[in-house]
Amino acid sequence: MNIESASFPATDLATAAELAAQLRVDSVRSSTSAGSGHPSSSMSAADLLAVLMSRHLRYDWDRPHNAANDHLIYSKGHASPLAYSVFKAAGVVSDEELLTGYRRFGERLQGHPTPVLPWVDVATGSLGQGLPDGVGVALAGKYLDKSPYRVWVLCGDSEFAEGSVWEALDKAAYYGLTNLITIVDVNRLGQRGETELAWDMDAYARRVEAFGAQAIVIDGHDLGQIDDAMVQARKAGEGKPVVILARTIKAKGFSKAADSPDWHGKPFPKDMADEAIAELGGERHLKIRGPLPEVVSTVRPAAAATDWDHVKYQVGDEVATRKAYGEALVAVGTRDARVVALDAEVGNSTHADLFAKAFPERFFEMFIAEQQLIAAATGLSVRGYKAFASTFAAFLTRAHDFIRMGAVSGVDLRLVGSHVGVEIGADGPSQMALEDIAMMRAVHGSTVLYPSDGTSTVALVDAMADRSGISYLRTTRGAYPVLYGAGELFPIGGCKVLRSSQDDQVTLVGAGVTLHAALEAADTLLQRGIRARVIDCYSVKPIDAGTLITAAEETSGRIVVAEDHHPEGGLGSAVTDALTGSGTRTLTIRRLAVTGMPGSGTGAELLAWAGIDAAHIADAAEALVREPVDRASNR
Amino acid sequence: MNIESASFPATDLATAAELAAQLRVDSVRSSTSAGSGHPSSSMSAADLLAVLMSRHLRYDWDRPHNAANDHLIYSKGHASPLAYSVFKAAGVVSDEELLTGYRRFGERLQGHPTPVLPWVDVATGSLGQGLPDGVGVALAGKYLDKSPYRVWVLCGDSEFAEGSVWEALDKAAYYGLTNLITIVDVNRLGQRGETELAWDMDAYARRVEAFGAQAIVIDGHDLGQIDDAMVQARKAGEGKPVVILARTIKAKGFSKAADSPDWHGKPFPKDMADEAIAELGGERHLKIRGPLPEVVSTVRPAAAATDWDHVKYQVGDEVATRKAYGEALVAVGTRDARVVALDAEVGNSTHADLFAKAFPERFFEMFIAEQQLIAAATGLSVRGYKAFASTFAAFLTRAHDFIRMGAVSGVDLRLVGSHVGVEIGADGPSQMALEDIAMMRAVHGSTVLYPSDGTSTVALVDAMADRSGISYLRTTRGAYPVLYGAGELFPIGGCKVLRSSQDDQVTLVGAGVTLHAALEAADTLLQRGIRARVIDCYSVKPIDAGTLITAAEETSGRIVVAEDHHPEGGLGSAVTDALTGSGTRTLTIRRLAVTGMPGSGTGAELLAWAGIDAAHIADAAEALVREPVDRASNR
Repeated sequence: MNIESASFPATDLATAAELAAQLRVDSVRSSTSAGSGHPSSSMSAADLLAVLMSRHLRYDWDRPHNAANDHLIYSKGHASPLAYSVFKAAGVVSDEELLTGYRRFGERLQGHPTPVLPWVDVATGSLGQGLPDGVGVALAGKYLDKSPYRVWVLCGDSEFAEGSVWEALDKAAYYGLTNLITIVDVNRLGQRGETELAWDMDAYARRVEAFGAQAIVIDGHDLGQIDDAMVQARKAGEGKPVVILARTIKAKGFSKAADSPDWHGKPFPKDMADEAIAELGGERHLKIRGPLPEVVSTVRPAAAATDWDHVKYQVGDEVATRKAYGEALVAVGTRDARVVALDAEVGNSTHADLFAKAFPERFFEMFIAEQQLIAAATGLSVRGYKAFASTFAAFLTRAHDFIRMGAVSGVDLRLVGSHVGVEIGADGPSQMALEDIAMMRAVHGSTVLYPSDGTSTVALVDAMADRSGISYLRTTRGAYPVLYGAGELFPIGGCKVLRSSQDDQVTLVGAGVTLHAALEAADTLLQRGIRARVIDCYSVKPIDAGTLITAAEETSGRIVVAEDHHPEGGLGSAVTDALTGSGTRTLTIRRLAVTGMPGSGTGAELLAWAGIDAAHIADAAEALVREPVDRASNR
Repeated sequence: MNIESASFPATDLATAAELAAQLRVDSVRSSTSAGSGHPSSSMSAADLLAVLMSRHLRYDWDRPHNAANDHLIYSKGHASPLAYSVFKAAGVVSDEELLTGYRRFGERLQGHPTPVLPWVDVATGSLGQGLPDGVGVALAGKYLDKSPYRVWVLCGDSEFAEGSVWEALDKAAYYGLTNLITIVDVNRLGQRGETELAWDMDAYARRVEAFGAQAIVIDGHDLGQIDDAMVQARKAGEGKPVVILARTIKAKGFSKAADSPDWHGKPFPKDMADEAIAELGGERHLKIRGPLPEVVSTVRPAAAATDWDHVKYQVGDEVATRKAYGEALVAVGTRDARVVALDAEVGNSTHADLFAKAFPERFFEMFIAEQQLIAAATGLSVRGYKAFASTFAAFLTRAHDFIRMGAVSGVDLRLVGSHVGVEIGADGPSQMALEDIAMMRAVHGSTVLYPSDGTSTVALVDAMADRSGISYLRTTRGAYPVLYGAGELFPIGGCKVLRSSQDDQVTLVGAGVTLHAALEAADTLLQRGIRARVIDCYSVKPIDAGTLITAAEETSGRIVVAEDHHPEGGLGSAVTDALTGSGTRTLTIRRLAVTGMPGSGTGAELLAWAGIDAAHIADAAEALVREPVDRASNR
């Protein structure tokens, strides 16, 4: 008797059919009680989930954090009534909560599932993300946890129009993820009518097979077919990830709404709900659980308890921060076995390749698929791994929605974007990140770090490993002098005052390449008889408002901020926000940023063209100091 | 004799072979002269382009804006040496420019092609975008221009890992784009080694066919096979878009580098370049042009010369701005036949469906594929159409990289995001746009508009139709009272002062739902004996700095800004930037924004929870007015 049969549950298909009816009824009841929600999209998938949760999903409902549990991801997050009805059937959500908590303020049964609920791995609701996330969880299962748990993902058919779904299946096949089982609820109808492929099951199967997965086409309302498909999927006999393509009917079970395009995303009015419940055989309150995992496990790879060797650089040596990232990542990976890395086929540019060489078993190549890059990191984070995901910063914009949803999921993502700004030179604007700080600052709870030298890069990568939420490191292509000696501390939320005197007349703020420019500008200004304070704003969010305010107060409110980024939402914005965020302040702020559309050139040419090099910083600072100030202007 | 044969060029394959050698030599010469670039990735595709440009591409090189020209999009933009060598062969770029202008500052032969060059439709360099853009051009050709021009797209193999490529092929097949011919240079090697599918031509063919295109697999260095494939592709005998899958060798023609993973993105040193040129038979300076289009045409659909009926709303009526968008779009589409619309399967939420009903022939459903949504709009813009693309604002983040590249391309994109902020209520955070203003403000040259009522929405949609660059309209889910009478003007870059007196003590700035809250707060404050100025900041970028500064000066520097958005990079940031952007100013700014992670609830509950409703605005304003001000704090 093997593990599978040993744990096979007693629930028979007749009981599963009762459960399916209950899930439909509860989907109707919960959404009608809330006055909003998607009962019809829940009802199409009720049979699928009834069979899955009662007979195949190995899940310890009392121990959602049992590491041996299967994972079930609701990629079609709008089917939240179904998800919550499953939780009721499992006995972890009460009928009362289902009827009074769904979609209500302050409650946990939100419009789309989020990990506020312990049985939910990732937030969904932005379509085409659950499956890519599931790939990450399955990667963890197969390559890191080396655990037999499976990842089940319930998808809608509409979301197969998202390219991210194909990125996911492609990677699932590439990595041989037989532990990933995708169930597609092909109910033919999207929000505003028929989907692109409607019920063309052959077309879905061809695509899925072409991407290297095994397709199993079934009638999604035939419990025997569903069960057979799941048994077959668990065997993964073809050695491929399995996609169960289930032909279903939207609002199945309620004849007035079934297969109608008019009932997307709408609760039934009370009278219709009553009618639906009657047609479905009335309320039921079955408590049904399926098989348990074989073991109770909370095993996670442990962090090494010992100290680790920091990478050390000599002050004055020229080191690219992207290179320092790679070297620091190896050190952090040595210290902590939970650290893993991913890259979008540019590891020899981001220098994630150093980690890949040192720890090939903890590196995942995502090729040029940035959405899947972030989704895989999200899935790895679900399993407790500390995933660093890197690519050119410009191309992280490709994954903006995944980063945003990562914040909703509350996962820890460590993102690294290289080749920022016009500094990169010859490659031109397509490769220049000039929006990334704005994007990353606006992510909920994010941390944005922008080191200027090798030493600070190492310290910040180290800090990121232990940082929760979404953190972002912005690295620079070119090599610049190391500014700090080994052992210098760089707390997140801090900054470094590199030049300072009691007679400072102006404050210069920079980060990355502009910090080096600011230091040179301070020398120039000194020759012109002007003393400038210079601040390395390596922590853009959170930002060291206290030090910036003190500097402003001590330099007559005169601030010059230079950044290799567009003027909106970047470093200058962060500094301005910090200075105006509390109290009343008199300020003269001059912000230098990239306002034109760059072309090719050398980095130096482009920094000068953009007006963010040392000469422009010095001139801007001098102009502030020399100009007559009319501080009474707005009083 | 049909049109095709009538225009068939005289260039024979032996001459095309000479041309191919020249393209390789020039790719080597230009990149070595620049000290950067991608000769190896150019050489793999040289035979493909030699046959294409000399025998199949119908292109009037002296009239790049001849509307009858075929289009050629370099989706693998890093093969810019090849593109520019083609331009030299066509006689529109000189050999001198190729050798002295490539990748240099201030020159037009940039690292990746951009429309700075008149023979380039769209900027590429972010992989996986040229083909989706080409779908947009082909949509215009088939459905709007109804012109026989073809769209040829040269892709790399690495970029087939991007989901956006599959979104594109899916839509190409759905819309029957037989005028779109994709050529994939399958040279097996990506940036850091072998691609995922290497030379598995069958796998590529299976995927392409599964997505509804016709695959033609060839040896990409056999000129006869190339030619036959292009003849076949032009016939589009299967009634499908054609994808020519060409097995090629990277750095083909130079034995020392051919098929080597070590020569990605590197120019050959001078001695190796000389060796390569010698092996390729030395320099050539052929001038070769292929067939011309049948006609010279500059025809574009004309704007109607007559005046149009504005949509009119009664002050006080409750109208959702998303609804007003749809109604305005119909009016604008009536006025101007160049206006087209696209949506990502949520037209009944964004109200693009009103346009779809009024002008079905000018509406393109992109289903749930936001990257393709923006790319199609980009391609339509290339052909002179005024494309409005809408979806939930939260999901526009999915297309961030495409919007960014649209700015590099210099195309006009009119984006509309609905369902913004916590105001949407029950659906929860996955559907709430809280980062979109930050994203859109940071796009180069963008316009960001955020109307609060129906009348201003109509005026701004009208203005967007004639706006160049990337413009963005943020619309709200719920219905709120119309504030302005028909005929009121809303210039971009302006704002409206809705409440004002000589005794104002504080300025309240809002937009969208927070403007209505600010108006209510002003009433509350008046009851508390405080006069508040209220500003409708409908134009977030450009912003009316003059009016804001005047308001600040006249209200003792006291400003409260409320926004249904995260605090970073949004309305509050735009206002703060405007107030601190020039001169010296004493300010007390209080910014109210969404700082926590929302859940479900009613809009009113969530606005209160976020601290951005009328009560919070009133309290914040009162606190500013009442608190003792220490204006000497930083002097």
